[in-house]
Amino acid sequence: MSENTGKKQFVEDLTDQGDDFSRWYNEVVRKAQLADYSPVRGSMVIRPYGYGLWENMQQLLDRRIKATGHENAYFPLLIPESLLQLEADHVEGFAPECAWVTEGGREKLEERYAIRPTSEAIIGHMYSKWIESYRDLPVLINQWANVMRWEKVTRLFLRTAEFLWQEGHTAHATEQECLEEVLRMLEVYRDFVETELAIPVYAGKKSDAERFAGAQDTYTIEALMKDGKALQAGTSHHLGQHFAKVFDITYQDEAGKRQHVWQTSWGVSTRLVGAIVMTHGDERGLRLPPNVAPVQVVIVPIWRKEEDKAAVSEFLVKVKEAIGPNVRIKVDDRDQYSPGWKYNEYEMRGVPIRLEVGPKDVASAAVMTVRRDTRAKESVPLAELGTRLPAMLADVQKTMFEQAKAFRDENTVLVTTKEEVIAHFAAEKRGFVAVPWDGTAAFETEIKEKCGATMRCMPHDLSRFGSLERPGHRVALFARAY
Amino acid sequence: MSENTGKKQFVEDLTDQGDDFSRWYNEVVRKAQLADYSPVRGSMVIRPYGYGLWENMQQLLDRRIKATGHENAYFPLLIPESLLQLEADHVEGFAPECAWVTEGGREKLEERYAIRPTSEAIIGHMYSKWIESYRDLPVLINQWANVMRWEKVTRLFLRTAEFLWQEGHTAHATEQECLEEVLRMLEVYRDFVETELAIPVYAGKKSDAERFAGAQDTYTIEALMKDGKALQAGTSHHLGQHFAKVFDITYQDEAGKRQHVWQTSWGVSTRLVGAIVMTHGDERGLRLPPNVAPVQVVIVPIWRKEEDKAAVSEFLVKVKEAIGPNVRIKVDDRDQYSPGWKYNEYEMRGVPIRLEVGPKDVASAAVMTVRRDTRAKESVPLAELGTRLPAMLADVQKTMFEQAKAFRDENTVLVTTKEEVIAHFAAEKRGFVAVPWDGTAAFETEIKEKCGATMRCMPHDLSRFGSLERPGHRVALFARAY
Repeated sequence: MSENTGKKQFVEDLTDQGDDFSRWYNEVVRKAQLADYSPVRGSMVIRPYGYGLWENMQQLLDRRIKATGHENAYFPLLIPESLLQLEADHVEGFAPECAWVTEGGREKLEERYAIRPTSEAIIGHMYSKWIESYRDLPVLINQWANVMRWEKVTRLFLRTAEFLWQEGHTAHATEQECLEEVLRMLEVYRDFVETELAIPVYAGKKSDAERFAGAQDTYTIEALMKDGKALQAGTSHHLGQHFAKVFDITYQDEAGKRQHVWQTSWGVSTRLVGAIVMTHGDERGLRLPPNVAPVQVVIVPIWRKEEDKAAVSEFLVKVKEAIGPNVRIKVDDRDQYSPGWKYNEYEMRGVPIRLEVGPKDVASAAVMTVRRDTRAKESVPLAELGTRLPAMLADVQKTMFEQAKAFRDENTVLVTTKEEVIAHFAAEKRGFVAVPWDGTAAFETEIKEKCGATMRCMPHDLSRFGSLERPGHRVALFARAY
Repeated sequence: MSENTGKKQFVEDLTDQGDDFSRWYNEVVRKAQLADYSPVRGSMVIRPYGYGLWENMQQLLDRRIKATGHENAYFPLLIPESLLQLEADHVEGFAPECAWVTEGGREKLEERYAIRPTSEAIIGHMYSKWIESYRDLPVLINQWANVMRWEKVTRLFLRTAEFLWQEGHTAHATEQECLEEVLRMLEVYRDFVETELAIPVYAGKKSDAERFAGAQDTYTIEALMKDGKALQAGTSHHLGQHFAKVFDITYQDEAGKRQHVWQTSWGVSTRLVGAIVMTHGDERGLRLPPNVAPVQVVIVPIWRKEEDKAAVSEFLVKVKEAIGPNVRIKVDDRDQYSPGWKYNEYEMRGVPIRLEVGPKDVASAAVMTVRRDTRAKESVPLAELGTRLPAMLADVQKTMFEQAKAFRDENTVLVTTKEEVIAHFAAEKRGFVAVPWDGTAAFETEIKEKCGATMRCMPHDLSRFGSLERPGHRVALFARAY
């Protein structure tokens, strides 16, 4: 794809993060060919490089979802309006942003169908048919799917009318088991996002004002982007018996009595791709965590003179053999681009490690490695590549997490009053502010109205916030958010 | 899920294939919990067992798609009506069965969007933006997605309003490369369907009357179901320059001249799940090819007396260890169902091999194996399980293919005239009939009108049909089809 053809100095064209973060973001997403705009209002095209990243994320998360006992299934894209309307809060939250199918074939439909904005309603309907006895519980099902929310303002990956996600939907016999599941999946998300995406998060509970439409409680993981804004990276909902009661999802308990089930739902989406870009990107473009990078190591052969070509090519075979099958590599031997142009391109695309292989390297039986995270260069002997490259990739992953965590921690401040929260965001507009919260909606509302910050969560881990604990109060994190 | 709770003799409830094949099919799909009906017109729910099967199929096909140089991407679900209308044949073929989105949020849209029935239009639009130079070619992209065709009559998996599929879309510099791609992917499909699904197919070209709306030529693989009807199992389209011309997809060739690209598209869908059911199923239910079966080996422990339980459970640990991690196993130690009930259940669900482990087996350090395909029983010593089970699974796979091929071959007859084709389907209504075809549409039309059979393809492999070759004629296969 030749979006960059001719723009040999495209890195120099990149807007500065400090000048206009939002413009920098859009440029990186498009220049790195993660995604493109489409002719469909608010919908994007996920290009092969962006989709390869998503596939790696899917695989690593899917493994965790299955390891915790869930199975995948697939439910209909369309949801009859009458089903969506059964749960009052749910329909109030989602109906305003639904896309509606009103015609099928050549006929006007008797009832409108919503393209799923989320699937609680259709899945609740099916669960009411499938669940009969306590022996059928728990039901632990996940779905990978596209969903649609007709948003007015959209941003590539962060907020698009259509996006891809997984949504888990489970049903349990007791509230205790239900809550355990909610927290289990929150922890799966925390571990996945921190371990694989190298994005540090605060895990905690949402306030009533911020919870999912139809839920009893919502739990969340919250990350901090480089512009200082928070991003909700995944949510796990305690649905209580809200849907069970309106969809009549009941089971016969061991004593022969009819009981309503307790439900959860939880999801993460392609929004996480945006989180990777905004957590790790820098002035040269994308930086991808090795665990999910479509290409972990790019090899750029260098030959000035035609007679070098054979020797370098021959040596490349040995290099690939030395690296082995467990590293995702790409060799870029295109003749029409210079090595320097390629270096820029793969830095823009965030490839974690670059190998430069020229006649000098052939002569010394070594290759030059260049890390994307630190730009550190080091010559590695051919014989050591098989062990050194995986170790270097692991170190890039670790370093990226530590850099992001240091940034997040530096940008988390502790204050003791509502007024200080407001003063912080009036002056800085960035970071997390932790504060003791009296539990009132008025406290949240005043902050939101005066400085645009919202309560992101009440963090579970209070090790850094011990000094804020007060009787009758919860520690709450505020931030301006995506 | 308790759909079968209480129906201890549910196998006996299964309709005979010979009595009512269509009813048998629906019963098996639902009793084996592959899929269920939904409250959305023509849409189904793919349940975890059916989706597990689809996931295994996806993985094996995706590997082949990537090995032939393709990358996955994701394009919008919605297609603006104006884009769909650009290619005249395409819109004529698909518009009558589109579902239309006419409202978004709370507003009526200025232009209708179709939920994609297939993605040539939206992808063609994007390719026209991405492709500039001969250096950008070929473009080799595949998409795994849901699509929607508002069909009047629907059948679980075989014909549903919404289904899941993959659609490959490629662009090439020359017609020669384009045709090579079309045939390469047809061969990928043939190999995938025959090797992994154990379904023998005839690969060949469609007649003009049967080709894809908007294509220059369509190639297909055609399978034979147990009721004698053919099923189109996958198609690969030579799109020529039809879409390139209307979407203005051009590249600059090496001489600096603008040229239109040549395109292909190709797809298989969840319909293949239906093909597996109807190719391999029998009077006891489903039979799944081991290569794609979600559970390859089910282990049923047997204990009559409580004191047997500990010894059997302990032995089971050794059995699982002996089998190792490369076989997909499931242990069913539920107490509320008898071993006999479980045997029936897993036969209904088509699990390729069952292991019965009771006190006698413990005593002799062996397990009883029962094959689903032949129902052959054999005791296998614990020490040999690790090698014997994989070999047995491979043999089940091979036997199932051979059985299906023998059935297909027995039900393929050779005739020399149109009148014989008509006479065949008037009498038998089943099987493939091969006949020399003069190339006229009248020949096809008369057959279709008089006996409902359609031309499935002109097979590439003529080894069985050599006697039908005539100057100025092509060998054509006719069948009544799904």
